[in-house]
Amino acid sequence: MEHGDRAGAPVSLGESGQAARVQEHLDRVLDAFGDGAVAQAMRYACSGGKRIRARLVLDGARLHDIPEARALWPACAIEAMHAYSLVHDDLPCMDDDDLRRGQPTVHIRWDEATAVLTGDALQALAFELAAHPDGAATAQARADLALSLARAAGGQGMVLGQALDIAAETADRPLTLDEITHLQAGKTGALIEWAACAGPRMALADTAPLAAYAAALGLAFQIQDDVIDVIGDAAAAGKAVGKDAAAGKATFVSLLGLDEARARAASLVDRACDALSGYGDDAESLRALARFVISRHS
Amino acid sequence: MEHGDRAGAPVSLGESGQAARVQEHLDRVLDAFGDGAVAQAMRYACSGGKRIRARLVLDGARLHDIPEARALWPACAIEAMHAYSLVHDDLPCMDDDDLRRGQPTVHIRWDEATAVLTGDALQALAFELAAHPDGAATAQARADLALSLARAAGGQGMVLGQALDIAAETADRPLTLDEITHLQAGKTGALIEWAACAGPRMALADTAPLAAYAAALGLAFQIQDDVIDVIGDAAAAGKAVGKDAAAGKATFVSLLGLDEARARAASLVDRACDALSGYGDDAESLRALARFVISRHS
Repeated sequence: MEHGDRAGAPVSLGESGQAARVQEHLDRVLDAFGDGAVAQAMRYACSGGKRIRARLVLDGARLHDIPEARALWPACAIEAMHAYSLVHDDLPCMDDDDLRRGQPTVHIRWDEATAVLTGDALQALAFELAAHPDGAATAQARADLALSLARAAGGQGMVLGQALDIAAETADRPLTLDEITHLQAGKTGALIEWAACAGPRMALADTAPLAAYAAALGLAFQIQDDVIDVIGDAAAAGKAVGKDAAAGKATFVSLLGLDEARARAASLVDRACDALSGYGDDAESLRALARFVISRHS
Repeated sequence: MEHGDRAGAPVSLGESGQAARVQEHLDRVLDAFGDGAVAQAMRYACSGGKRIRARLVLDGARLHDIPEARALWPACAIEAMHAYSLVHDDLPCMDDDDLRRGQPTVHIRWDEATAVLTGDALQALAFELAAHPDGAATAQARADLALSLARAAGGQGMVLGQALDIAAETADRPLTLDEITHLQAGKTGALIEWAACAGPRMALADTAPLAAYAAALGLAFQIQDDVIDVIGDAAAAGKAVGKDAAAGKATFVSLLGLDEARARAASLVDRACDALSGYGDDAESLRALARFVISRHS
């Protein structure tokens, strides 16, 4: 295999302090929400995870000379948005998952009403952080971050992808490759693209190279998710594996086969890295992040 | 009674074309979302209603010489936010309501998953409209609108109010007057304040007078809701009445008695109108809106 790291240990995910600084910043922001059930559940839903979206923001911002203290605001915005989507996705009326990152999901730990409200509050928090005056230095960038985040998250972005995913479960035929690619572009791709483009947006710079990087990366990410669902082990994934296959859902693996799916993901990572050529060696951490995505086992 | 209009027909609610122009603008915006179940449910959830929040935006904007074509963006933003809160509030795990404005609620007409996603998409849409470049003329105002909307809607605003409301249902004692006032300041008051202040925010002007107006108006609005719950008729309200009383929930009426609740609402409307004195006769439509709030029967 030409991509040796796929079968071995995952490649390293950037410098280790980055995720800790994201968590610290989120903790500080969430402190202000008091100690009610929703505030507790917001903190619970925002803990852990690989922080891939936050890292995309921070690394993209660094390429545009944005200080990390400012970039942490949109980095935490996208993590709050991602956390909301997981809390609602896990609800009984949606994917009905009891376990997330090896822990009980919010509606199991608390109840459904708290889970609905926690997701709602986390979505609002995402916009508060994206538009925060301590984030992007110019009002133009803050307004752009909020506007683009709304488009990425909403009914023409992530929510559309979720809706297509749910509709597919009751459809009378499995999705085609084009349909599943379209679905994933919304469900996973839109937030990944926003994260990668937050840096240039903060600098009022061209977002095209990082958007191209993110489009390829987002698809590779979802293909690898399907690969993990087939070959992964439940302990590493922190959730039930083989669930999609058992449900008879079309996945990249069911449509392409395991080997072709892996080859496709690897080729997309190459394309993602190529899109960074204008940034030269400075973009090495984003290239490493792309390689991490297809090397991870969970 | 010194407030004769309370017992008679509702006072007129501003010029009749205003609500129609809000609906037209919302329809045009929602056209872009295609024809999937979530898009259809978004349109369904955004139809009808008294548009009190949108009117607050439009009338507040007019006081600051903001063209209506611009003010329609935040006006529709707050209606989308309000619509999302109703869709989620009606869910079986929340208030479990089958009827809203005389029509089946979204989870009845479609299903729970569609209702969760529709609310999620409408919240995102609210931020897209608040930050829209065709709305406020300056980036500073657009960023401020998005930031303040996030704070009003989130875990320290509307969602906090909702959470306190749900917690009250399982508490071992009814809420006190202070507690119910605090709850309503979040649940209803935060969005009403945002709506009233959107105009001065668009003009980068002082929001204090309209914030004071809105604080009094929001509380009067909620007291009148409790009054309607006791004396209203179900056909006019488009929903079950007497529900709160039957559930043994503390309301302004149960705490103050019907006469005192009405007197309190009337006094709050006087206070709201007083806060507008600096605007002179130009604020007459906002005074009429305040009087409408305590004259309405549904």
